[in-house]
Amino acid sequence: MPDAVNLKQKLTLFSEHWSPKIVSAYNGNDVMVVKFQGAFPWHKHESTDDFFLVIEGHIRLETEQGNVELGPGELYVVPRGVLHRPVAEQEAQVLLIEPKGEPNSGDPATAATKVWI
Amino acid sequence: MPDAVNLKQKLTLFSEHWSPKIVSAYNGNDVMVVKFQGAFPWHKHESTDDFFLVIEGHIRLETEQGNVELGPGELYVVPRGVLHRPVAEQEAQVLLIEPKGEPNSGDPATAATKVWI
Repeated sequence: MPDAVNLKQKLTLFSEHWSPKIVSAYNGNDVMVVKFQGAFPWHKHESTDDFFLVIEGHIRLETEQGNVELGPGELYVVPRGVLHRPVAEQEAQVLLIEPKGEPNSGDPATAATKVWI
Repeated sequence: MPDAVNLKQKLTLFSEHWSPKIVSAYNGNDVMVVKFQGAFPWHKHESTDDFFLVIEGHIRLETEQGNVELGPGELYVVPRGVLHRPVAEQEAQVLLIEPKGEPNSGDPATAATKVWI
């Protein structure tokens, strides 16, 4: 029987930014924790929505449709096909959900390798 | 441009237990908040995993494979086909993700009607 996944505990296991770590799986999706700091490149996912839930800190999702500010306990789903980039002025901790194998940058050539922790 | 979804704020909008409210959508899934108190009937979902993330309080996921205790910031995914029931000795607030239209009880005849808030 697997244990519960404690998100804060998982986030103590690594320090690098923009490197999502898989902590669970749901219907072919990777459930991940990640640390953001600074600005990620603009990108889009043609065939998947992009799920963000802030665990700690504050992020801004800049999109071609406008910006969304997210603090702890706030979520936003960027619809598929919409150009966006996450920005965090200071380090923020975020829960992400993406289909297994989806490149975090929208492009396999520039994507982070996702590993389980 | 839709606003961020603040989970705590959404949870102030209703008081009934075992009645999931949809707050967002992700790739054909409903993202929901719900209040648990007491024990839900045993059930399973034949064709979908069942995602639970505790926002506030404490729950126990009893499954035919064993039990999992979850507090705030802890998540667990019950695999498809596994008999389970959530139990909360005191009121708990939970984020759920299920495919759109999936009955929360595993059975359309007994399922709660899910509405957007």
